[in-house]
Amino acid sequence: MPGLRARVARALDPALRRAPGLSIANKAIVAIVFLSIAVGVLETEVTLRETFPRAFAAIETLCLAVFAVEYAGRVYAAPENPAHRSRLGFILTPSALIDLAVIVTLVLPFFGLESSLLRVVRVVRILRLAKLGRFSLAMRLLGDAVWRRRFELGVSLMFAAIALLVSASLLYLVEGVLQPESFGSIPRAMWWSIATLTTVGYGDAVPVTGLGRVFGALTALAGVGIIAIPAGLLAGAFAEAVAEARARGQEPDDLP
Amino acid sequence: MPGLRARVARALDPALRRAPGLSIANKAIVAIVFLSIAVGVLETEVTLRETFPRAFAAIETLCLAVFAVEYAGRVYAAPENPAHRSRLGFILTPSALIDLAVIVTLVLPFFGLESSLLRVVRVVRILRLAKLGRFSLAMRLLGDAVWRRRFELGVSLMFAAIALLVSASLLYLVEGVLQPESFGSIPRAMWWSIATLTTVGYGDAVPVTGLGRVFGALTALAGVGIIAIPAGLLAGAFAEAVAEARARGQEPDDLP
Amino acid sequence: MPGLRARVARALDPALRRAPGLSIANKAIVAIVFLSIAVGVLETEVTLRETFPRAFAAIETLCLAVFAVEYAGRVYAAPENPAHRSRLGFILTPSALIDLAVIVTLVLPFFGLESSLLRVVRVVRILRLAKLGRFSLAMRLLGDAVWRRRFELGVSLMFAAIALLVSASLLYLVEGVLQPESFGSIPRAMWWSIATLTTVGYGDAVPVTGLGRVFGALTALAGVGIIAIPAGLLAGAFAEAVAEARARGQEPDDLP
Amino acid sequence: MPGLRARVARALDPALRRAPGLSIANKAIVAIVFLSIAVGVLETEVTLRETFPRAFAAIETLCLAVFAVEYAGRVYAAPENPAHRSRLGFILTPSALIDLAVIVTLVLPFFGLESSLLRVVRVVRILRLAKLGRFSLAMRLLGDAVWRRRFELGVSLMFAAIALLVSASLLYLVEGVLQPESFGSIPRAMWWSIATLTTVGYGDAVPVTGLGRVFGALTALAGVGIIAIPAGLLAGAFAEAVAEARARGQEPDDLP
Repeated sequence: MPGLRARVARALDPALRRAPGLSIANKAIVAIVFLSIAVGVLETEVTLRETFPRAFAAIETLCLAVFAVEYAGRVYAAPENPAHRSRLGFILTPSALIDLAVIVTLVLPFFGLESSLLRVVRVVRILRLAKLGRFSLAMRLLGDAVWRRRFELGVSLMFAAIALLVSASLLYLVEGVLQPESFGSIPRAMWWSIATLTTVGYGDAVPVTGLGRVFGALTALAGVGIIAIPAGLLAGAFAEAVAEARARGQEPDDLP
Repeated sequence: MPGLRARVARALDPALRRAPGLSIANKAIVAIVFLSIAVGVLETEVTLRETFPRAFAAIETLCLAVFAVEYAGRVYAAPENPAHRSRLGFILTPSALIDLAVIVTLVLPFFGLESSLLRVVRVVRILRLAKLGRFSLAMRLLGDAVWRRRFELGVSLMFAAIALLVSASLLYLVEGVLQPESFGSIPRAMWWSIATLTTVGYGDAVPVTGLGRVFGALTALAGVGIIAIPAGLLAGAFAEAVAEARARGQEPDDLP
Repeated sequence: MPGLRARVARALDPALRRAPGLSIANKAIVAIVFLSIAVGVLETEVTLRETFPRAFAAIETLCLAVFAVEYAGRVYAAPENPAHRSRLGFILTPSALIDLAVIVTLVLPFFGLESSLLRVVRVVRILRLAKLGRFSLAMRLLGDAVWRRRFELGVSLMFAAIALLVSASLLYLVEGVLQPESFGSIPRAMWWSIATLTTVGYGDAVPVTGLGRVFGALTALAGVGIIAIPAGLLAGAFAEAVAEARARGQEPDDLP
Repeated sequence: MPGLRARVARALDPALRRAPGLSIANKAIVAIVFLSIAVGVLETEVTLRETFPRAFAAIETLCLAVFAVEYAGRVYAAPENPAHRSRLGFILTPSALIDLAVIVTLVLPFFGLESSLLRVVRVVRILRLAKLGRFSLAMRLLGDAVWRRRFELGVSLMFAAIALLVSASLLYLVEGVLQPESFGSIPRAMWWSIATLTTVGYGDAVPVTGLGRVFGALTALAGVGIIAIPAGLLAGAFAEAVAEARARGQEPDDLP
């Protein structure tokens, strides 16, 4: 019968687990991570934070406790995995450092922080997402898809960059004097160009002269063509990467 | 020669019909459903409702009568279909309950209702759409398409969720103090993020600082790439599902 | 040596021409059609019309003359083509009626018209486009593409219609009281829904409540998925139709 | 051992280089081109230009020096490449003329220029981009992709043009009197039409009448279908062109 350390290791370290899928402990941790992210997002809304101050504090404390216990467990059981030479070696791995950083951001508010610092701390907590990354092939699949089409994507990004530069320059020339706020320099005109090339089209800056609108229309058409190329490439490459992962015997259910 | 009940059953229950396609009775009911939805939509517009009050009332009454007769007919003929053990069993099927609910929403206004309740009743009537669902393979085809690509769709939704979270957090950090109404919390910033990632771009909230616009531009580009992946997957899977339905011998004309 | 009528027929009727491509006369007519459309568009702009009144009048008169001569020539030479039983038979074909209508819209302004009628006449002239249609396989190719995927397109239009109905109804329920101008009835809310589902996103109507924005975000996401399906189907079917036209030996240069 | 001229030629002219990839000299020039474009874009922003006047002047002078030396070196070494008959023949090639034009735009500001002329000069400098074009297969690949699908792209552009014309004409008829600024002529209405057909949707012009919104909705739907066709075609043709370039033995790393 395995000792405590071996059982902790098998519960927390997916690499040491024999059965497929996640262990119960890791499933619980994934749930807590999602909960803590949801709370982290909602507590930035002051109206919610002031209406349910206790609920937020309670969930934060729960998350802190779970993450602290998990971290301690991982450090304790690290020597079970031959990939980690020592506990210190494990502590210095990027994934363990992120875990520590998340715990620190959960402890800090208890010491009282300036509101602007608190704001940053709250956002940094989104690093908790990276805790999920450890269990996931998904990132690797997208990375693979991008790498596989790196040349095509590079070329089409180049075209997108040229379109951005040319269109922003033309609008700067044509509308710069009339609308200095929106088109008074090429970097300013680029904000309009990006919104047009991606077909977002906020409408906070729009050409008003005839010639400016002709160039604007050409930019919109260029956007449709140029933007479609990388989008289509990426979708195709991603589908390919998933199909190959499946062919290698990685079951969909293992993945996310 | 079949009895009345058998003939009613064959006219109303597509599962008992021998000839392909819909019976004349069901074709008429489909037409009435479309008519009643059109009227239901138009009567929410107060200017139309007050200009043609009689026309609306007449069509509503007609629809009520048709649906009531249809419902009564189905209940009466239910025992013909071996799938229903008894009339009560049929009445408790989800599809029969929806039929009843639709009839109730058509009867209720005659008793006089508060305007806010009436508003809800009017919208609930859209449930009539589900009456069409009974005749349709279309839903199953889309469901099949989604199921077939559930892993890829899941992964790309995950990327979309991460992009949403990261972009909303960055904009909250950068623009939150300047524009508290639009970016004062992560949930608020998410409204802008969704509009940008899907390239809808309403323009009701836009970043105004240089750094905010840089992150905004990256969000727009990420949207084009991330959103293209599930869209392309879904289109491909749907085309596949239709091709297979056709190969199984289901003629297009049977379907919708 | 062929008589005058035969030579006119061969110059004007592509079906009787032996050499590939368009005759010189028809090339000139296509050029005049494009010119007349360009002028027709530009003359609606009052600032241009008042700056160059003579140029517009001169080009209109030229177009009128060319179209009148062409029409007379076609009527004169109609019996050469066995497809037309008689000159009257030719005059009553849809394509000849359109030609006549275009000539009428060019003659009418000389008799003095009310400005609102003139406005309609100017737009009706765009029918001249249909004169190009006669020389073109393009319409048939797109029609073929749509027909080939009629079932898939029908199903996805059905989903789009359901998404439109559901999203407009929800926004009407949630935002109708707050923003009666934009969401006070389902038809009004549909304007916002269409703009969101197609990712146009004008921003003239936007949900302002939390729940309204949640439904708005779901609508935007639905739009990306639902709209991608018919767009992808259409693009694929169109590419297929063109490839088959080519395989049948229709040279690209013949087509437009 | 090769003479100085031969070594200069091999360092600067990719056609004479034996090893794969770019020479060190050309890599440095590419870096300077990127730097000079970045500076050219940023210096149009007056707030930056006035904050770091010396940095901008210094980088401009550096770029001028590098481009002048490069140009002199190319002219000096031109006879090494049998493609150029003489130095004068090389000077008159388009690529050498662009190089000269870029140098002129860098020299001109030292003589003092009016601000409006300076503005044009700054934009003309973007021609520096064309210096990169010399090293690049990318343009040829996209050109190839467009050429390969010229018929399909032509037809779909024709449909887009018809949709633009019809939708702008209808909106001009319906909304022209109410909103003369946005829809008072077909060219004006085209600005709205382009923004809608490409799904950019600025929202600076929107139909306000019921009928106008019906036509607006149809335009948005047409845009989704019509715009998807060329976008999909282009993406497919581009992927093909890249795959063939690779099959011809051109390594991705050589290309951009």
